[in-house]
Amino acid sequence: MIFRTDLALEKQEALADASPRGVLHAVKEEDGVRVTTICIRNEKGEQALGKPKGTYITLEMPTPLTDKMLLSSLRRALSCELQKLLPQEGTVLVAGLGNESITPDALGPRAAKYLFATRHINGEIARVSGFGHLRPVAALAPGVLGQTGIETAEILESVARGISPAAVIVIDALSSRRLSRLGTTVQLTDTGLSPGSGVGNKRAEISLRTLGVPVVAIGVPTVVDGATLIADWLDSYGIDPRREPRFSQESFMMVTPKEVDLLIDRAAQVVAMGINCALQPTLSEQELLELVK
Amino acid sequence: MIFRTDLALEKQEALADASPRGVLHAVKEEDGVRVTTICIRNEKGEQALGKPKGTYITLEMPTPLTDKMLLSSLRRALSCELQKLLPQEGTVLVAGLGNESITPDALGPRAAKYLFATRHINGEIARVSGFGHLRPVAALAPGVLGQTGIETAEILESVARGISPAAVIVIDALSSRRLSRLGTTVQLTDTGLSPGSGVGNKRAEISLRTLGVPVVAIGVPTVVDGATLIADWLDSYGIDPRREPRFSQESFMMVTPKEVDLLIDRAAQVVAMGINCALQPTLSEQELLELVK
Amino acid sequence: MIFRTDLALEKQEALADASPRGVLHAVKEEDGVRVTTICIRNEKGEQALGKPKGTYITLEMPTPLTDKMLLSSLRRALSCELQKLLPQEGTVLVAGLGNESITPDALGPRAAKYLFATRHINGEIARVSGFGHLRPVAALAPGVLGQTGIETAEILESVARGISPAAVIVIDALSSRRLSRLGTTVQLTDTGLSPGSGVGNKRAEISLRTLGVPVVAIGVPTVVDGATLIADWLDSYGIDPRREPRFSQESFMMVTPKEVDLLIDRAAQVVAMGINCALQPTLSEQELLELVK
Amino acid sequence: MIFRTDLALEKQEALADASPRGVLHAVKEEDGVRVTTICIRNEKGEQALGKPKGTYITLEMPTPLTDKMLLSSLRRALSCELQKLLPQEGTVLVAGLGNESITPDALGPRAAKYLFATRHINGEIARVSGFGHLRPVAALAPGVLGQTGIETAEILESVARGISPAAVIVIDALSSRRLSRLGTTVQLTDTGLSPGSGVGNKRAEISLRTLGVPVVAIGVPTVVDGATLIADWLDSYGIDPRREPRFSQESFMMVTPKEVDLLIDRAAQVVAMGINCALQPTLSEQELLELVK
Repeated sequence: MIFRTDLALEKQEALADASPRGVLHAVKEEDGVRVTTICIRNEKGEQALGKPKGTYITLEMPTPLTDKMLLSSLRRALSCELQKLLPQEGTVLVAGLGNESITPDALGPRAAKYLFATRHINGEIARVSGFGHLRPVAALAPGVLGQTGIETAEILESVARGISPAAVIVIDALSSRRLSRLGTTVQLTDTGLSPGSGVGNKRAEISLRTLGVPVVAIGVPTVVDGATLIADWLDSYGIDPRREPRFSQESFMMVTPKEVDLLIDRAAQVVAMGINCALQPTLSEQELLELVK
Repeated sequence: MIFRTDLALEKQEALADASPRGVLHAVKEEDGVRVTTICIRNEKGEQALGKPKGTYITLEMPTPLTDKMLLSSLRRALSCELQKLLPQEGTVLVAGLGNESITPDALGPRAAKYLFATRHINGEIARVSGFGHLRPVAALAPGVLGQTGIETAEILESVARGISPAAVIVIDALSSRRLSRLGTTVQLTDTGLSPGSGVGNKRAEISLRTLGVPVVAIGVPTVVDGATLIADWLDSYGIDPRREPRFSQESFMMVTPKEVDLLIDRAAQVVAMGINCALQPTLSEQELLELVK
Repeated sequence: MIFRTDLALEKQEALADASPRGVLHAVKEEDGVRVTTICIRNEKGEQALGKPKGTYITLEMPTPLTDKMLLSSLRRALSCELQKLLPQEGTVLVAGLGNESITPDALGPRAAKYLFATRHINGEIARVSGFGHLRPVAALAPGVLGQTGIETAEILESVARGISPAAVIVIDALSSRRLSRLGTTVQLTDTGLSPGSGVGNKRAEISLRTLGVPVVAIGVPTVVDGATLIADWLDSYGIDPRREPRFSQESFMMVTPKEVDLLIDRAAQVVAMGINCALQPTLSEQELLELVK
Repeated sequence: MIFRTDLALEKQEALADASPRGVLHAVKEEDGVRVTTICIRNEKGEQALGKPKGTYITLEMPTPLTDKMLLSSLRRALSCELQKLLPQEGTVLVAGLGNESITPDALGPRAAKYLFATRHINGEIARVSGFGHLRPVAALAPGVLGQTGIETAEILESVARGISPAAVIVIDALSSRRLSRLGTTVQLTDTGLSPGSGVGNKRAEISLRTLGVPVVAIGVPTVVDGATLIADWLDSYGIDPRREPRFSQESFMMVTPKEVDLLIDRAAQVVAMGINCALQPTLSEQELLELVK
């Protein structure tokens, strides 16, 4: 597809037929955050959207992640939707994917630093530390293939086999088709993901099928693919970008806001705190904030 | 100008008249590196190229900064051209400009880490350490306005007044019009610069006029401006981008390679080592490499 | 002196005469934080304590910086005492001294990241951003001599001459004589400091005398000097450490908690937020927290 | 034991009987590096030295890691001794243990950044890239328990089960009894290790027994335990430190050089390059240096 996007919502928007067969679609708004749920129910839906069967929840804010009130709304919405996708009990393994040295790809590793890992805080220590019941959480930033020589999917499969979590959450930077979505949108899905797809290197799948437990992927668009941006402009002038022979470097380029560091840092905090709140309902947001800083 | 670039070479390429009045132009090639010297000699030249009077030297490699031989050639060419622009003696203040948290803007601060600061290594210590004569070099990474509340130009003016250098070198990330120039080109100029111009925030000038001593700016293009990229594509289809009313977010976007971290790291090393070699001719490249690591 | 300490309080504790001439001494307690004020009033006092004339305020917590309530108390006490030492109006330049690459010396640079720099947010922008009156604050992390080739004192003198602040605040890691003081104590003084004294490299003075405006130094002990620790133990056994000929490497060693990263991070936040609150009384602590993250 | 050390060599030095039964001991010198091999052959030897059966090779330099010639000698000696402990063929998993945020504990994670991971560079890519045969190497920095909630040993067991290496190498910071050994000594052993023992938190074993393949541990002493330092001094005055009731905080303290950042960085490079050279004999040291920077 010439218009690259990791968002099911944008795939749907691109369709001629707004309500394809096999796809359910619902929208609500809560405290200024728009929540769109897309369910791909069968192969028809898979073909229409070019994405695997499952649920895709998109949280959209009207503006970038700077308004304090909206950030809180977004965090709450994320926490609430995440709880619906996870089993109620059992260890959760959370992995922040991506390359920490490339700012727009650093969402996962940065979010991992704000996660509250609790799996090692068992009975006795938890009591002494004044914690009540803590859900066991493990947190990893497995690095990228070029640094480790191991596919992220392989590392997660191995670790999941080792610690037998009830569910896995993966956090990754996504690519969007629209500049306006960068840093304003969060997508949750129970279909897992292929890491690196956000910056164009498709890797082995991380999903229920490969890990054997539910996998929720949480992503925030941080880049638009270079070729997609141009194709969209050409398209708006009636030029068919598929007939454009000159795309080459553009496909190796990403388009990202000049203030991408702030975008990434705020998004990492929102995602991590949304996860922390969803997994530790006995602790308040304020308590969790102080635990992870 | 709708096509943003910090490279005098690209300004010239964009002209209808290839040899405008008031502009001299010379090209040579050395060990695979193309060296283009553009001299803007008077106001006519300034108007033609939209850049201040002075010398602009562009070093171009045929490919990105990965080929070892070419990297060495580039480092030598940089060192050699830099020496021509600097006074032969006296303290040199080198400043790495930009925001370390935004990978494509981090060239300056990263290069600063590879600089060999020597101003404090005076007679006695230098002798004991086995150094012969060292030219005094001070190295700063002054941060960006949003972090410090002080314009970079103000900090450099103050420090220059304090330590009275014979010359100042500033290192900054640049914006180019062409994707193919990202990480393959180095520009040196004796006109100084306005920091932040590479990512679109024009700041106070840093130049002979404001600092009172020669200022050489060394830059590497690391981004193409979002609006420039699209404008160029529209232009190639005969659409006049100046009549395009929809540019808005695009101007706040940068286009940069997906592997921008490697690009920045290699460029920072080439620039810093080129400076180190130019300033310490009594030490070999190998010795300097070991001193700054 | 064989027992190295940067704390006036510990100098006083070491005296045979608990109330030397020329030294005033007062203690109070507020919300669990002990506040000791030592005034060295004249040369007699200077000789007794081996420190320059001025006010030294020590804030002590009973435990390391982990208790949330105590942290808030400490932050408030710091903010309150700092306000007494500063002029009520005018630009304040805050500098975080030390080497970011050495964890126990990184207090200053890390605190600088949590400072709210406002000097560039003037009338129009401030109004649009919804801020009321902001006191102008500039924030620097000038690096260390080995990296820059310039004495920190020189950089601060230059920048202070350039931006003419009403006062300067410097933040630095200190050395203490007692392990129990690491990360539990804050010292404020209107006498300024000599950077690097915390890790044993005495540098040029930074003070009212050298900068021409009031200089408040804020420090947290993060290390005990290796030789001091041993000397104290020998002393406790009646062995005179001054007669110990074998101290050599010990003087180049620092003793620091194994969890020094947490200590530094909490201390940096407390110090920075204490400064932010003291300088921006129109903003709440919560608002300031969100502005600097 | 009151004198904590991770070095078999120091355990042996502390013995009254210089040649205990069950322990073989050999010393040689090469290019200024002293190589001591200690073989613990049976239970008698284990009891004598308080360490598990196996080979311990200690490389000692007369001075800290600053002399260029000696650094090269050390790297070569490390590479040479390492090759003897590893199988000749097959994938090697290298893990850099420790906490990156605590400078003296950051040896492992920093070394991991200088490792040349090759497992993903297979036939086709390797040929195109101009590499001949590359031995497959995977590189991990698994983080610490407090960040991940997972024991390092668990992560390594899982990943080793996943990628079936022929051998595992673990890199960790060690504690020494002697200040003079910090940054001047490297220990290799085929007995594996318990991570965190360097800073006093004993963790699950990482060894042939637990991973099922040969495990070589490479460590550099970066700290002396606080209590050990004092105990040694007391001991030198004939005071029995075991009868000292006041050790408490000291055990949570580490003693480390003030310039620990340089020490760690040089040690990380020596260890990583020693490993790279041992694993890729078809590449020169210079080629490897350029590949990992």
